[in-house]
Amino acid sequence: MASHLLRIYFFSIHYIMAKIAPPKGMRDFLPTDARLRAYLIQQITRVYEQHGFEPIVTPAVENLETLTGKYGDEGDKLLFKIQKRGAKAAEGCDLGLRYDLTVPLARFYAQHRNDLPRIFKRYQIAPVWRADRPGAGRFREFVQCDVDIIGAKAPYPEISLITAASDVFKALDFPPSVLRLNDRRVLRAMIAAAGIPAEQEIATITILDKLDKIGVDGVKKELATIGISDASQLLAMLDVRNSNEETIAGLRKMLDSDKQASLALDELATIAAAFEGQEGLKVVVDASLARGLDYYTGAIFEIVNPALGSSIAGGGRYDDLIGIFSKQSQPACGISLGFERMVGILQQRQKTSVELRSADVLVTIFNDQLYTQSREAALALRQAGIRVDLYAQADKLNKQFKYANQQNIPWVITIGDDEAASAIVSLKNMVTGEQHNVDLTEAIALIKV
Amino acid sequence: MASHLLRIYFFSIHYIMAKIAPPKGMRDFLPTDARLRAYLIQQITRVYEQHGFEPIVTPAVENLETLTGKYGDEGDKLLFKIQKRGAKAAEGCDLGLRYDLTVPLARFYAQHRNDLPRIFKRYQIAPVWRADRPGAGRFREFVQCDVDIIGAKAPYPEISLITAASDVFKALDFPPSVLRLNDRRVLRAMIAAAGIPAEQEIATITILDKLDKIGVDGVKKELATIGISDASQLLAMLDVRNSNEETIAGLRKMLDSDKQASLALDELATIAAAFEGQEGLKVVVDASLARGLDYYTGAIFEIVNPALGSSIAGGGRYDDLIGIFSKQSQPACGISLGFERMVGILQQRQKTSVELRSADVLVTIFNDQLYTQSREAALALRQAGIRVDLYAQADKLNKQFKYANQQNIPWVITIGDDEAASAIVSLKNMVTGEQHNVDLTEAIALIKV
Repeated sequence: MASHLLRIYFFSIHYIMAKIAPPKGMRDFLPTDARLRAYLIQQITRVYEQHGFEPIVTPAVENLETLTGKYGDEGDKLLFKIQKRGAKAAEGCDLGLRYDLTVPLARFYAQHRNDLPRIFKRYQIAPVWRADRPGAGRFREFVQCDVDIIGAKAPYPEISLITAASDVFKALDFPPSVLRLNDRRVLRAMIAAAGIPAEQEIATITILDKLDKIGVDGVKKELATIGISDASQLLAMLDVRNSNEETIAGLRKMLDSDKQASLALDELATIAAAFEGQEGLKVVVDASLARGLDYYTGAIFEIVNPALGSSIAGGGRYDDLIGIFSKQSQPACGISLGFERMVGILQQRQKTSVELRSADVLVTIFNDQLYTQSREAALALRQAGIRVDLYAQADKLNKQFKYANQQNIPWVITIGDDEAASAIVSLKNMVTGEQHNVDLTEAIALIKV
Repeated sequence: MASHLLRIYFFSIHYIMAKIAPPKGMRDFLPTDARLRAYLIQQITRVYEQHGFEPIVTPAVENLETLTGKYGDEGDKLLFKIQKRGAKAAEGCDLGLRYDLTVPLARFYAQHRNDLPRIFKRYQIAPVWRADRPGAGRFREFVQCDVDIIGAKAPYPEISLITAASDVFKALDFPPSVLRLNDRRVLRAMIAAAGIPAEQEIATITILDKLDKIGVDGVKKELATIGISDASQLLAMLDVRNSNEETIAGLRKMLDSDKQASLALDELATIAAAFEGQEGLKVVVDASLARGLDYYTGAIFEIVNPALGSSIAGGGRYDDLIGIFSKQSQPACGISLGFERMVGILQQRQKTSVELRSADVLVTIFNDQLYTQSREAALALRQAGIRVDLYAQADKLNKQFKYANQQNIPWVITIGDDEAASAIVSLKNMVTGEQHNVDLTEAIALIKV
């Protein structure tokens, strides 16, 4: 704890000016939401642990040079930069808040590779910060939920990552999802086949990524702005709506001279086959899927939640990213779950579960003379594994019952003079209104039902 | 995810310069440590939830004006300040990383008080940042673990907070602790009785707080520097080593003209009595306990872990702090567990528990032709509730076994051609070396033992 704090006599002068909202684009979470978020983190963690993934923790703060230049010019502008301390403050910034969990992972892997297994399967669920213009569903502090496999080649890691993500959605009882699947090598081969020069490949992919949002005409218009006036051929090639086998066969025919694309199609076939007929996940090989990030080198995928009407997870293979922090490159593949969107789905359900309650029972304090009796009852109830809120002062009983109601606590125990004399408690069911005068053992049994 | 990333052709140019260590004073945590920290958070959370405390989440970032002036001049210097974005960068900083969890709680309470219960019991376990000079056990990013009760008067909240903290230590199987207990009003009355002027009260308390570190002579020397040349009387008054009842009786006699001190001693007696004879916690009313923070107004306490030889939790009542952010003041009391110190105790134990393993079983991939059989075995094992790591590529078997060993995975399943033909698996116990050729049902039974 800090050993210096504002002197008490400053308090009354300052409060009038105090801003009490959190910073722009950032959020406070009250208990109900905080519990829901913790519950979601716990469920995701449980599933990932079941799949043999391991947690790591990296600092929220990174050296600025670790972050800059990794997210494009736009990304650089959105970094929260931290000023040097003390006398060096005038020199500018040396640190920044992390912008995602992937670049820190690459740095972490380079730093600790000798202490890590040769195939490293990690998950990390943690906040990231971006100075984006706040908007609906867009925040300046939000949680990312990444799972990656470093050190293993395609395509089994892809299958493992998609399986784990799909198991998370199953555990949360989400409706069946659609897996959209493509490969950057296929996309690049098609761009080349459409006669678009290599130096416009990344720009083209960035525009294609907007297809869902701006439609075919929008994409054509944006491609025109970078000098690609006739995009009809490319867009026709991308617009394949067949069975996965037919789609892959069609792409094979179209791209048979491109070795990389052929290899990619073999891998896509293996990945798609692994999920054929799987309950809860429909696989669609979709040549138009582009994904925004520049660093993908192989398979790319997105899981679309039909209830949301939008993607709830996305990822892909990025075999060249680790090499930026390390002399030795490493094959790598990752998937990121849309944590904030998942929270939104859980919130819409409005299903209250036990976990979202503050306690199973409130023990009131009848008066100061009977405090010890109430405290001892609380201790005994906790011993029995019951979650107990012991009220914090000897208020009027109706205030204490009102508190139990507000807190959705289903049972209230009161020990007044009569109860104390007979070694019983008064147990009230706050849902039915029923009242029981029972000893503590019976009370425990009733609460535990 | 970011839609722009460094172009791949930049990667090879940049890696030579890349710093790969985390920022000064901050830490990466590898899986074993990350799991231990997650386990500790989980245990603390479980106990606090059992006591009816509720979680909240506040942003890591606060408006700078929320933070400055709250931690004294020294504290202000240790804030990590965030530069304004874009064109306003030259204007300086508008945000800062949170320095503790108490000031953000006060801001949160003021902002959301209409949506909170009239007595608000919250816990928060989260990192804070201080640009302190890094040293042994001192980090620039570390986790704080705070639990507070707002809206209730002394002394029951104090008892509830100490009980909950003590239950955390019991749940972790820590050795019995000592609770040191005092009250700021007693301390202030003694300082006044010793003839020290009121304007030197806080400075005196700050120096008394160092008693354990610098001893009686050190304290005398420091008091002399602020003009208190004869501190013998005060130090003699503080040096009481009796039973709690005798100590309280002695203090009562000495301070009987001070109403505030008398009230404080009543409360101390109630708090001490609540823990008399409690297993695992020895209460010592200790008039010399000062606590560093300026904002305490009533009871102060520290829990000392004899294994550490130092305090592992500390807190007190601060009835005037909420008022800084809110017109209406609120009684409040809190305790903070020393999270990093608790991690240290757990680490020294070197007890490996199941939770610290990456998986219960590794399923190898014998070759690409048999991948599907291995994957299906992995799915079935997971269905049975077993934590399964499916290896990520068709490496040589000895590499896969070595990986299991490194990861401390106790079982390995292999499905080669013979096993596949007979619908069995080869199950190896990595601890005993035993090998079983069994069907999957038997394998599940063996692993689950």
